[in-house]
Amino acid sequence: MTLDHGDPGDAPSVPAPLTAVENPVRPSAAEEARTVAAATNTATLASLTGEGDPWASFVTYGLLEGQPVLCVSRMAEHGRNLLADPRASVAIVAPDAPADPLAGARVTLAGVVQRPVGAEADAARAAHIAAVPAAVHYIDYSDFTLWVLRVQRVRWVGGYGRMDSASAQDYAAAAADPIVSHASHAVTHLNKDHADALLDMARAFGGFPDATTAGCERADRYGLDLRVTTPRGVAVTRVGYASPIDSPAELRAATVELTHRARAANGH
Amino acid sequence: MTLDHGDPGDAPSVPAPLTAVENPVRPSAAEEARTVAAATNTATLASLTGEGDPWASFVTYGLLEGQPVLCVSRMAEHGRNLLADPRASVAIVAPDAPADPLAGARVTLAGVVQRPVGAEADAARAAHIAAVPAAVHYIDYSDFTLWVLRVQRVRWVGGYGRMDSASAQDYAAAAADPIVSHASHAVTHLNKDHADALLDMARAFGGFPDATTAGCERADRYGLDLRVTTPRGVAVTRVGYASPIDSPAELRAATVELTHRARAANGH
Repeated sequence: MTLDHGDPGDAPSVPAPLTAVENPVRPSAAEEARTVAAATNTATLASLTGEGDPWASFVTYGLLEGQPVLCVSRMAEHGRNLLADPRASVAIVAPDAPADPLAGARVTLAGVVQRPVGAEADAARAAHIAAVPAAVHYIDYSDFTLWVLRVQRVRWVGGYGRMDSASAQDYAAAAADPIVSHASHAVTHLNKDHADALLDMARAFGGFPDATTAGCERADRYGLDLRVTTPRGVAVTRVGYASPIDSPAELRAATVELTHRARAANGH
Repeated sequence: MTLDHGDPGDAPSVPAPLTAVENPVRPSAAEEARTVAAATNTATLASLTGEGDPWASFVTYGLLEGQPVLCVSRMAEHGRNLLADPRASVAIVAPDAPADPLAGARVTLAGVVQRPVGAEADAARAAHIAAVPAAVHYIDYSDFTLWVLRVQRVRWVGGYGRMDSASAQDYAAAAADPIVSHASHAVTHLNKDHADALLDMARAFGGFPDATTAGCERADRYGLDLRVTTPRGVAVTRVGYASPIDSPAELRAATVELTHRARAANGH
């Protein structure tokens, strides 16, 4: 199915790149989804009431190999819902949402809940408590049930115009990005003290040789999301490091290398 | 149905009041639910997929007489879900969640979505844009649908052990509390500079003459939620103003009156 906006409305137009984006590699939808899931411990659960109606409710969770581990009471409606019908999904919103909420990242994980047994039950209990320390006070009450959401469908939305589905297999195999949730200080530093370097990157590698300003919106293991201003309007683009990085400590060297290479390409 | 925890676990025990709480009046579940709904502009929607599975997804909303007004695209799964089946619920979490997420307030509003027509369509559009200013850029795209959630069921949770349902009628008739979301500075000030007054209130009116410290957790139009420390443990209690207040500007006079009355009752 192809769907498109039917009316231009009054949204601002976005200029296209003038040159090819040199290294646009970025995290996959599966990696993005794992990153959102790993960034917090609260979600909203959708379960089914006895009438088959959808019921949205706030929950806490831990993660076991990317699968949400819930701990809910049958004294609560959602707990009774899951006992009667295991179909469930959770929506998780990345913390530190931007002022425009729809510009932020979120994910829906859908499937069926299952009570873990044996060693998995121990691992699930530990995963929940690691993420939700207060759970030690109620996790062993007999009205609480530990559930593992067996993820069958994954839908990630990264903000306006950035969204994709991931297969359950890709989601299970992916890792959370090791940089995104730990780079906010570094991103602030790049914007405050190295705006000239970001502009060189945007001009040399980001496809916007006519950029007049550039700011960094996010750093991940593969590169930087940039927002550029041009005489033609404002756009977002991407610059990739020479090679992916595995820890926040590698971010400085990767951006310094990008800067040197961009300045050489720009002839200064 | 009566349900109770089946196992004491290791949660700390909570001391009971030693004397009657003098004026325990507090917002109704309907008022609490309206307060949570009015405090933010983001929620999670639970809708039904074509297979009848529950689908949780992040949404923005405005409020029209307490009814969430959604604006979603049929390019998104939740948009197609609502077009096919109007049953829906939203979970809304009060902003500025405490460190223990389950101690915070949240609400589930459930019912069916309906496309507003005529004057209500104009009012719904205005209500959505008032809450979500960025929506002016897409609300008139033809793939977007404006929906009003006709609230049939209301479930409010105020934190551990504080929860109740409200009827649709009571929810519709209630008003959001005018104090809760605007009193954080005043609450900080009470705790920082008037801990002795809070302690007098807790001893005189809160049922804890053995309190050794008292802190204010929240102010609403009817009174203060207090957390008290006693030799028997930590408890929460309530002190009510002489009469309800209608604006944050009245909070100071109401708490000064409470303080004078408490000190007289305590004999100093």
